[in-house]
Amino acid sequence: MAIGAKALPISFVAHFLGIVGAILLHPVLMLIGLIILGGEAIISYKCLPLKKPEKKLIHLVLHAIALILGIIGVYTAFKFHNESNIANLYSLHSWLGIGVIVLYGIQWVYGFLVFFYPGGTTAIRSESIPWHVLFGIFIYVLAVGTATLGYLEKLTFLESNGLEKYGSEAFLVNFTAIVTILYGTFVILTILSQPHQEDEYSYSAI
Amino acid sequence: MAIGAKALPISFVAHFLGIVGAILLHPVLMLIGLIILGGEAIISYKCLPLKKPEKKLIHLVLHAIALILGIIGVYTAFKFHNESNIANLYSLHSWLGIGVIVLYGIQWVYGFLVFFYPGGTTAIRSESIPWHVLFGIFIYVLAVGTATLGYLEKLTFLESNGLEKYGSEAFLVNFTAIVTILYGTFVILTILSQPHQEDEYSYSAI
Repeated sequence: MAIGAKALPISFVAHFLGIVGAILLHPVLMLIGLIILGGEAIISYKCLPLKKPEKKLIHLVLHAIALILGIIGVYTAFKFHNESNIANLYSLHSWLGIGVIVLYGIQWVYGFLVFFYPGGTTAIRSESIPWHVLFGIFIYVLAVGTATLGYLEKLTFLESNGLEKYGSEAFLVNFTAIVTILYGTFVILTILSQPHQEDEYSYSAI
Repeated sequence: MAIGAKALPISFVAHFLGIVGAILLHPVLMLIGLIILGGEAIISYKCLPLKKPEKKLIHLVLHAIALILGIIGVYTAFKFHNESNIANLYSLHSWLGIGVIVLYGIQWVYGFLVFFYPGGTTAIRSESIPWHVLFGIFIYVLAVGTATLGYLEKLTFLESNGLEKYGSEAFLVNFTAIVTILYGTFVILTILSQPHQEDEYSYSAI
């Protein structure tokens, strides 16, 4: 069965939509995943009025979702580049992005093994926790920084192709970047503030 | 008195050299000023084997030099833009850059008034110190982030004008950016580590 239209031009439309989807998908996945869910994962362990095992489960599940969305986000970037014949992995944004994903993965696996299952000895846990927090903060700040590089890179491409430098779209992207930075700042500030309940393995260990 | 050559084309050469100088000057001033001297100012208060008043003096003088070089660096960016008819203050790099300079200035003046001259009461000092450290870390991380945005922005312009994406120049800029990030990371790590001598107003107050 076939409708009375040529398949090839329609396939171009499909590819075009796929590319638009991938372009849109990458920042959305990264912002919702690594930045927002990652931030919520960090905040949840500090602030939820729950017992430690429950907070830990929420912390690791949220970070797992963030990581998976981040990996899909990296995949969409490669897919979009390959389908549009754009070079891969030449920019600082891409280098740091790969770095963030790899470090995020290492941090998650280490945290899972030491703090969840099978779990390290008490000595290993209490030795590890400040480094887990410190390394986590580092990766999170690097993720926020990499996101701002992405906003700037995309906008610079668009502006060199004629997008107005002081137009609404440009301002929207820049203000989104600033909101992202402020969100990340308050996530980190949450960790460095006083916990509302005492907890031996609280982030306050730092 | 006049030599036997037309002034106008020679003035073009002068302007061209001025512009090259300004382009080169901006990243050099920012890197040497806000990033390196700013980092040394932060480290010095934590690590120098000196008495507190001496460390404080070194801390504030280094930050003052960093700030002055930063202000000259901002000036050279405007000068270069105006002489080359490039728009000012449209990019995320420029917005954050202005933000960093303003916050750096506020932080310096507050620190000078409260901790140096005329100096606040003991209560105000001990209440202020963790916020001074926290705000200082925030501004410094923002400065490092703004620098990486600058590397990426400049390189994106150059690459859209034909510079090889995987060439030595591009790699040099990207690796410089990564070294800048690593330097900033170790400056912050220094603050968060244990001091080698006990000190009431040490950074460890955080």
